[in-house]
Amino acid sequence: MEGVDHLAHERSKAQFDVDQMKVVWVGSRHALQVSDRIARLVASDPVLRKDNRTMMTRKELFKNTLRKAAHGWKRINELRLSEEEASWFRHYVDQPAYTDLHWGMFVPFIKGSGTEEQQKKWLPLAYKMQIIGCYAQTELGHGSNVQGLETTATFDPKTDEFVLNSPTLTSSKWWPGGLGKAATHAVAFARLITDGKDHGVNGFIVQLRSLDDHLPLPGITVGDIGMKFGNGAYNSMDNGVLRFDNVRIPRDQMLMRVAQVTREGKYVQSNVPRQLLYGTMVFVRQTIVSDASTALSRAVCIATRYSAVRRQFGSENGGVETQVIDYKTQQSRLFPLLASAYAFRFVGEWLKWLYTDVTQKLQANDFATLPEAHACTAGLKSLTTSATADAIEECRKLCGGHGYLTNSGLPELFAVYVPACTYEGDNVVLLLQVARFLMKTVSQLPSGKKPVGTTSYMGRAEHLIQCRCNVQKVEDWLKPSVILEAFEARAIRMSIACAQDLSKFSNQEEGFAELSSNLAEAAVAHCQLIVVSK
Amino acid sequence: MEGVDHLAHERSKAQFDVDQMKVVWVGSRHALQVSDRIARLVASDPVLRKDNRTMMTRKELFKNTLRKAAHGWKRINELRLSEEEASWFRHYVDQPAYTDLHWGMFVPFIKGSGTEEQQKKWLPLAYKMQIIGCYAQTELGHGSNVQGLETTATFDPKTDEFVLNSPTLTSSKWWPGGLGKAATHAVAFARLITDGKDHGVNGFIVQLRSLDDHLPLPGITVGDIGMKFGNGAYNSMDNGVLRFDNVRIPRDQMLMRVAQVTREGKYVQSNVPRQLLYGTMVFVRQTIVSDASTALSRAVCIATRYSAVRRQFGSENGGVETQVIDYKTQQSRLFPLLASAYAFRFVGEWLKWLYTDVTQKLQANDFATLPEAHACTAGLKSLTTSATADAIEECRKLCGGHGYLTNSGLPELFAVYVPACTYEGDNVVLLLQVARFLMKTVSQLPSGKKPVGTTSYMGRAEHLIQCRCNVQKVEDWLKPSVILEAFEARAIRMSIACAQDLSKFSNQEEGFAELSSNLAEAAVAHCQLIVVSK
Repeated sequence: MEGVDHLAHERSKAQFDVDQMKVVWVGSRHALQVSDRIARLVASDPVLRKDNRTMMTRKELFKNTLRKAAHGWKRINELRLSEEEASWFRHYVDQPAYTDLHWGMFVPFIKGSGTEEQQKKWLPLAYKMQIIGCYAQTELGHGSNVQGLETTATFDPKTDEFVLNSPTLTSSKWWPGGLGKAATHAVAFARLITDGKDHGVNGFIVQLRSLDDHLPLPGITVGDIGMKFGNGAYNSMDNGVLRFDNVRIPRDQMLMRVAQVTREGKYVQSNVPRQLLYGTMVFVRQTIVSDASTALSRAVCIATRYSAVRRQFGSENGGVETQVIDYKTQQSRLFPLLASAYAFRFVGEWLKWLYTDVTQKLQANDFATLPEAHACTAGLKSLTTSATADAIEECRKLCGGHGYLTNSGLPELFAVYVPACTYEGDNVVLLLQVARFLMKTVSQLPSGKKPVGTTSYMGRAEHLIQCRCNVQKVEDWLKPSVILEAFEARAIRMSIACAQDLSKFSNQEEGFAELSSNLAEAAVAHCQLIVVSK
Repeated sequence: MEGVDHLAHERSKAQFDVDQMKVVWVGSRHALQVSDRIARLVASDPVLRKDNRTMMTRKELFKNTLRKAAHGWKRINELRLSEEEASWFRHYVDQPAYTDLHWGMFVPFIKGSGTEEQQKKWLPLAYKMQIIGCYAQTELGHGSNVQGLETTATFDPKTDEFVLNSPTLTSSKWWPGGLGKAATHAVAFARLITDGKDHGVNGFIVQLRSLDDHLPLPGITVGDIGMKFGNGAYNSMDNGVLRFDNVRIPRDQMLMRVAQVTREGKYVQSNVPRQLLYGTMVFVRQTIVSDASTALSRAVCIATRYSAVRRQFGSENGGVETQVIDYKTQQSRLFPLLASAYAFRFVGEWLKWLYTDVTQKLQANDFATLPEAHACTAGLKSLTTSATADAIEECRKLCGGHGYLTNSGLPELFAVYVPACTYEGDNVVLLLQVARFLMKTVSQLPSGKKPVGTTSYMGRAEHLIQCRCNVQKVEDWLKPSVILEAFEARAIRMSIACAQDLSKFSNQEEGFAELSSNLAEAAVAHCQLIVVSK
């Protein structure tokens, strides 16, 4: 085996322009150049090395994360990197850190839900990292069901303060990244109670730790929730637990863009439409879909290179053995994953367009396409993250025993990726949301309401239900229009079958619960169609 | 949530005799009592605690393994445990260790492949653990293809010794458990060369480390291959790398039961049939199938209990939320895994019978049913380990975010289990072996040769190809005979379709390679049928 460069031989056989493909993958020639330059910068920096990560103890790993975050901040400033460059820099540092939540959740949430005054007060502190923020929503007993949160924020008109409490064990905040060790502040979600009345869940800025000695403030119990799946992986993150015992904060630390509490304790909704918040959700989910293609491409790249180098069996007369990549069983498992990596990349690019489109419409107070955009991003988040998690594990298996060594990179990639199936919406819960939207769309077909965007194929329901596949020979399957129609026909038929079954129930909610497996499958079919069509 | 014991409520609803089911699960009332007693013994021993395992560094974990192995050995002797009790003890210690290879591979292999004289010399040393053995077969470049091993053992008639060498990087022994740090000796596999002639792969007993200071002997390069997937998990095992540079061993350290080399360097086959070695393989794979049901039952147990305790959504008027186990989407994912755990247990029990049957026939020099028994165990090993690995990960996902914490037990269970898909036969390679056997069986049908054992349904090929499923209503699917026939019809149709496609190729090996994906699927269908029928 020594002395043979199998990759060079495989590469020489490429039937497309590799350089052009790189540009298409990254998005533009400019983006490719920037990302390439920053990748080399990060790779050559000894502080940012990753090869020893899976060998570290939890404590070493967390210290390493603090060091990398501080070093990254220093380098970004020293080199005066642009926002685009800094973003690539963080991308290539590639180690989950409290800063992800500070920049990715705390800051955007204050921007989206804080009044102008609140933004003026808090954002400069956050930008300079004089405070470190986290996003404390999920509780031990409450994940997907945000409306079930138990933490309370009770207005005390005597002192003009909110009093935060964790009334039960299950109300303990559980999971927030950055909370365990690093954060000084949190956007904490709690049921707002004024004058004995529960106004539902709202966000509050709460200081957790002293800015002098970093110790928890009175009434705050906070800590790390322990080891997570895998070596290295998400163990660099200090996911935390938090309990409040009569913690008092000034009234102006409730985020008041959408609703506010007056000095007298009156709850007042503002005229800012709540739908604006959905724009952020579309943005975050678009990022998740792009990240899925990145993670998947890494795994597929490792497995493909391994398959080209690895040889096993098939030696004739003592010659070299057959490259594993030439086995049909390997190809039939690996190549669809390779195709998915590209498909998810293009869907991600399309979602960027969708986000721009949604944002423009929201600014014009046009909320008509929002439900469709919301269902579409929810479904694609679910589909791409589930597929990617499974695919990384499949790539690990495709590397045989060698995939089991952390040196292959695949165990850590899998362990660090799988939470994407749960965070920002559990994948099953999201599919059921999509199914609900599909059922609504189907029910409105008879009234002549025209389905929009990714559901517009439903307007051709009659044709799609009756049409027969006119494939005659194998090659016919290579026509995109044939494949598209097959996926459309499948998706609409599954949706309509569910709708018909649903109509047999007198209680719709009961029917929905009873049929949820079929509904989730119909949602998957719809989402697969979106991927195929984009 | 506090104060409500959801499990007690669920348990009170059981519609079967739980105690009886335990007996059925373990195999007998006696076995249940012994296993229960030993489980308590292990659980109450502070040296054998497991809860801190995922927090340990690699070094701490390996020291912990050494301590547990020594402590276990001491306790088994102190308490004068019977072999049955000792076996349960090791089962519940449940931490991969070099002793697994010493007792599970090194000792059995000397028993199976050593002459009586060799057994007399080496087994007493091994039984008293005065030497620690490992099983050094796999090489960096050679896993499944044992015949491709490159390590050489060249007979030197001048000194009456074999000279062992690792001629290439890819010939480095890679993976053997216990090799990295613990083993003093190995059964090492190498190409036997006498007088310039290659006689293929044979086993040799080679001392690796000094019995005085445990340092590697001259010519031996040995070490640990590094971190493996997951926290804790297989990192307690010192999987190793080994290279030979002109290592000399006496001629009588070649294991000579099946073939020997004389003082003059002549290679002589003994009259012991090589098929006897297959008996061991059937035994090892039967153990793997039983272990699959154990691992799967642990995962399903955790996920089922979690699903009963966890509540999310569905609260009406502020009451408690719906138990997750009551959601159809949860049930449709969880319950089939629960059923599989039982199915694999019963198949494992049946395989014990098969092993006894095969052993008796081998002793009577009856090799007629061996290919069928071999294909059957290979297929079941592949099917049950793949299904179990996937199922553990599915159980982890069914616990939502909480499954991602190592405290749930699921991340370590997954990471420690997945190698079962690769060791003792890569699961895809095994399926193709089964497919080869199925194709042979199909090809012999016209000649009137009656298929035996698990392939006997193929004798009814004509009926099964023509028969139509006579299910009219949903309840009909509850009849075992209907399900059995459906699985039989599916398996035979897939096999015959493959055989027909195969017959179109002039070169059978080319056809087999081209159709390997379909062949693997046909093998899966056949193996699923075995599970259904047992």
